[in-house]
Amino acid sequence: MKGIFITGEGPEGAGKTSILNRLAKEFSDKGYPILLTREPGGISIAEKVREVILDPKNTEMDARTEALLYAAARRQHLVEKVRPALESGAIVLCDRFIDSSLAYQGYARGLGIDEVYEMNLFATQEMMPDATLYFDIEPEQGLKRIEMHKGREVNRLDLEAIDFHHKVCEGYEILLDKFADRMHKIDASGTFEQVYEQAKQTFKEIIRAHGK
Amino acid sequence: MKGIFITGEGPEGAGKTSILNRLAKEFSDKGYPILLTREPGGISIAEKVREVILDPKNTEMDARTEALLYAAARRQHLVEKVRPALESGAIVLCDRFIDSSLAYQGYARGLGIDEVYEMNLFATQEMMPDATLYFDIEPEQGLKRIEMHKGREVNRLDLEAIDFHHKVCEGYEILLDKFADRMHKIDASGTFEQVYEQAKQTFKEIIRAHGK
Repeated sequence: MKGIFITGEGPEGAGKTSILNRLAKEFSDKGYPILLTREPGGISIAEKVREVILDPKNTEMDARTEALLYAAARRQHLVEKVRPALESGAIVLCDRFIDSSLAYQGYARGLGIDEVYEMNLFATQEMMPDATLYFDIEPEQGLKRIEMHKGREVNRLDLEAIDFHHKVCEGYEILLDKFADRMHKIDASGTFEQVYEQAKQTFKEIIRAHGK
Repeated sequence: MKGIFITGEGPEGAGKTSILNRLAKEFSDKGYPILLTREPGGISIAEKVREVILDPKNTEMDARTEALLYAAARRQHLVEKVRPALESGAIVLCDRFIDSSLAYQGYARGLGIDEVYEMNLFATQEMMPDATLYFDIEPEQGLKRIEMHKGREVNRLDLEAIDFHHKVCEGYEILLDKFADRMHKIDASGTFEQVYEQAKQTFKEIIRAHGK
């Protein structure tokens, strides 16, 4: 692949979406070929799958069913959007990817990080991100930010209890060790500008390391 | 599990659905606790997933996405319907299960039987059928039967070419070897009564072997 595949990860309220948006805008404006995306990313089949996952009526969904559906949406988004962009040389910035499934389904829901990882490798056909920006924040601070953030659609995940968020963070800590080579930890506890500066420096180092 | 989990498998037009229906009726009438089912089996989440798979508008669906979606529907159907019935001591007759994914997606679509098997073991949590009735028929004869069978809803799979059906049969042949212990081959080339008699004898042997 000629492009660079960079993912953004972190618990709810770490601010990663806003930071990734700004990164994409700044570097696009500078002339870099950036594709900012997130699953299901407007891909029709992936969108339909995501509707099934997030339907608040589906309270009886088994955790393995959910993990398989996330992997299905991931696959279709990867095939239709991410891979073609990488083939054309783009820097793809993907807001959440495989690590979210490992932290949320694998660890926090107890399915097992390795089991969910193996199943997701079927979905990605062994493809992994070149680098990952991990937005690190204490669960309490992340949740406080979500509450302050008005006008955001409430989905099933937001209804989970606070100790689920704690577990998500524990899961991500394991991934920081497991995938130390590609994981770049960003301290997300500061102001937007502080976090953005760190993310931007890290992003520049990543694309420089990949020859861009 | 107190019950017995028996699946019916075979290419299109082998007549397995009619045979399984008659088996379920005859043995229910005799007082056996039979549950006849097939994915998605009226399970709301599984039905919604199946709608995504079979939507004729979704022509761009990747084969791995499809395999993941079948596995998701399988998981939910297993958790909500099959497992509770087995726990209550029922004989569950399931029209198609994991072997269909292995023959269709794993072999005929070229994803690899072992890869699809591993991914499906995530979905079933390592659970496999106790026994499988395999309805063996030449692809040409099976397809001829489908054409004669009017009033059947045409879905995406029916639009596949004939050599896909040949590959499905080749895939099943591999499974007959791989899972020789649980696979029971039924010659499905004869009349309904001939096939039914064989299936019934095999079914009786299976439930006797499981102490029913």
